[in-house]
Amino acid sequence: NTVFDPTEHPHRRYNPLTGQWILVSPHRAKRPWSGQDEAPATEQLPSYDEKCFLCAGNTRISGDKNPDYQGTYVFTNDFAALMTDSPDVPKSDDPLFTSMEARGLSRVICFSPDHSKTLPELSLPAIRGVIDTWNEQIEELGKDYLWVQAFENKGETMGCSQPHPHGQIWANSFLPNEIERKDQHLRDYYQQHGSNLLVDYATKELAAKERVVVETEHWLAVVPYWAAWPFETMLLPKTHIRRLSELSDAQRDDLALAIKKLTSRYDNLFKCSFPYSMGWHYAPFFKEGDTSSEHWQLHALFYPPLLRSASVRKFMVGYEMLAESQRDLTAEQAAAKLRELSDVHYKEQTN
Amino acid sequence: NTVFDPTEHPHRRYNPLTGQWILVSPHRAKRPWSGQDEAPATEQLPSYDEKCFLCAGNTRISGDKNPDYQGTYVFTNDFAALMTDSPDVPKSDDPLFTSMEARGLSRVICFSPDHSKTLPELSLPAIRGVIDTWNEQIEELGKDYLWVQAFENKGETMGCSQPHPHGQIWANSFLPNEIERKDQHLRDYYQQHGSNLLVDYATKELAAKERVVVETEHWLAVVPYWAAWPFETMLLPKTHIRRLSELSDAQRDDLALAIKKLTSRYDNLFKCSFPYSMGWHYAPFFKEGDTSSEHWQLHALFYPPLLRSASVRKFMVGYEMLAESQRDLTAEQAAAKLRELSDVHYKEQTN
Ligand SMILES: O=P(O)(O)O[C@H]1O[C@H](CO)[C@@H](O)[C@H](O)[C@H]1O
Ligand SMILES: O=P(O)(O)O[C@H]1O[C@H](CO)[C@@H](O)[C@H](O)[C@H]1O
Repeated sequence: NTVFDPTEHPHRRYNPLTGQWILVSPHRAKRPWSGQDEAPATEQLPSYDEKCFLCAGNTRISGDKNPDYQGTYVFTNDFAALMTDSPDVPKSDDPLFTSMEARGLSRVICFSPDHSKTLPELSLPAIRGVIDTWNEQIEELGKDYLWVQAFENKGETMGCSQPHPHGQIWANSFLPNEIERKDQHLRDYYQQHGSNLLVDYATKELAAKERVVVETEHWLAVVPYWAAWPFETMLLPKTHIRRLSELSDAQRDDLALAIKKLTSRYDNLFKCSFPYSMGWHYAPFFKEGDTSSEHWQLHALFYPPLLRSASVRKFMVGYEMLAESQRDLTAEQAAAKLRELSDVHYKEQTN
Repeated sequence: NTVFDPTEHPHRRYNPLTGQWILVSPHRAKRPWSGQDEAPATEQLPSYDEKCFLCAGNTRISGDKNPDYQGTYVFTNDFAALMTDSPDVPKSDDPLFTSMEARGLSRVICFSPDHSKTLPELSLPAIRGVIDTWNEQIEELGKDYLWVQAFENKGETMGCSQPHPHGQIWANSFLPNEIERKDQHLRDYYQQHGSNLLVDYATKELAAKERVVVETEHWLAVVPYWAAWPFETMLLPKTHIRRLSELSDAQRDDLALAIKKLTSRYDNLFKCSFPYSMGWHYAPFFKEGDTSSEHWQLHALFYPPLLRSASVRKFMVGYEMLAESQRDLTAEQAAAKLRELSDVHYKEQTN
């Protein structure tokens, strides 16, 4: 009778935040690859590109001209997926044909006027500026909207049509699927255990160490036990924080450091500008009295697609779309690979 | 007060099979695109490629030699994500670190010895051969496994490393997420309404017509009301059928016709070999007495990534991964575009 070895034997892991399982196939990384190559992002871009519609001083498609901004710059997305005044949807009694109204808006945040610098290449004060902008935007839009999704699509592989460092904010009059589901799972755990799921989780990961990728004074980045993407990570504070607005000044500075270290490790992995989609989850803007949000914990999620090299990604396709997410190395193996690397960006290393 | 217009106003639609919502942003198709281009599959391949490890007579990486097959050919995947004898996982009491055992196997089905012909380009008898092979494999593996996922990843965009027409079968000792969730939703509807969700749905779509793409004597392909991917379709029989094995001879021949028509419309849309992941959902192999499967209905799902042209796809990235699926045209608009096209493949059109 063989003894179970997580690095040899396929198994499933449970994601307590979504109630979904992930199929882990650790022996599968050995197979050869002859499929699609991504274009690796290794090119050195100029600091200013006259054709870029995010660079300072340039004119966008809408005809608006960007100011001569220094830190971050926020503007309304000219092609938003949402409208602030979308009308109500007439009610239907048919459970097979159900729609509902969706209102919201969408903004773009330029992280820096420097066209060539992604998050890990920015200075700590510049990253701190991005954190403060995320916070201001979320708090401002949270006055009118139940949910405000701040995210960044980085790299062509992640549908990013613009190399200029930037993220997006989509404000929603509704709780999107992923947030509603997470709210339910966090709430259930809180009621059952009387403690916060992600605070408990952070404590256990700090003790176990094997999935930790970055640890700073106030922050922790781990490859979650239930990660689906090869080098997926979760970045969370060590103490109970519901939203960015609750962070102290020191915790914000330290978050800039944690982001710089984590994203530098990412770039160092395959010596390229590492593509990913990342974003923040935190307590939704429930109306007062509606519901408590003690069960929520602020955290950022990073979903990078690369698997084997700067040009070979993991495809979440047939089996994954129809049945279940599947990964080709364990969370512990991924964390070890990221931990082995320097947390100083390869372009900033002097040797 | 503006009246709601589904082709103008963002709204959400509910998927009764998954309990998830989809954000529909019909006005968004107008935005310009300067991001990643896919390599469109328009190249004419040879009927035989000596380097292809799926062509008849060639030797695979494992050292095994493919026979001189005529119709379909099935073999065990040399790099399977599952093992038949993976050991049990020791039980854990910690709800944050839960694993379970996963056993299974994985096979490859070559659809045809002809390296150059994808599903829509095969003859009706050849497609009928693929249907029979799917059925035989599913019934054989269903004796040992609770779930057998038959699927096809088509095109480099969908992670397919091999242009030779082929699909896969993954047998599982467990119900994967998507099937478990669907089982629950179908069962709830059956208990509440005393009828089968997808049979009711097919009847209503046949009456409404606006989302129908292909209709044959026994089959129906629609862009589901709740479609997430731009040109997603569901192919289902008009009467209650739980599994491929329940189909009559005439229904199987007619399925070959429906598949040929649907996939030809796909190829005709952007005059390319249209990439997609497709697969079958149907009543799982519950052990007798365990549970009834009256609530299940056989159906195939097609998830194609292309949005605007042979080279511009929809990216399900930041907002979609972190919050909710979002689409840029309505299901009705997508169905109308597919309906406008000929159901004869562009390479087979004589004019
Ligand atoms: O086995 P294949 O076709 O090489 O692999 C492909 O399909 C699998 C099942 O959907 C995925 O897990 C892989 O990421 C994808 O590249
Ligand atoms: O608005 P962008 O960056 O052009 O668009 C990108 O991000 C959006 C939000 O994740 C996606 O819906 C789009 O498919 C993607 O191309």
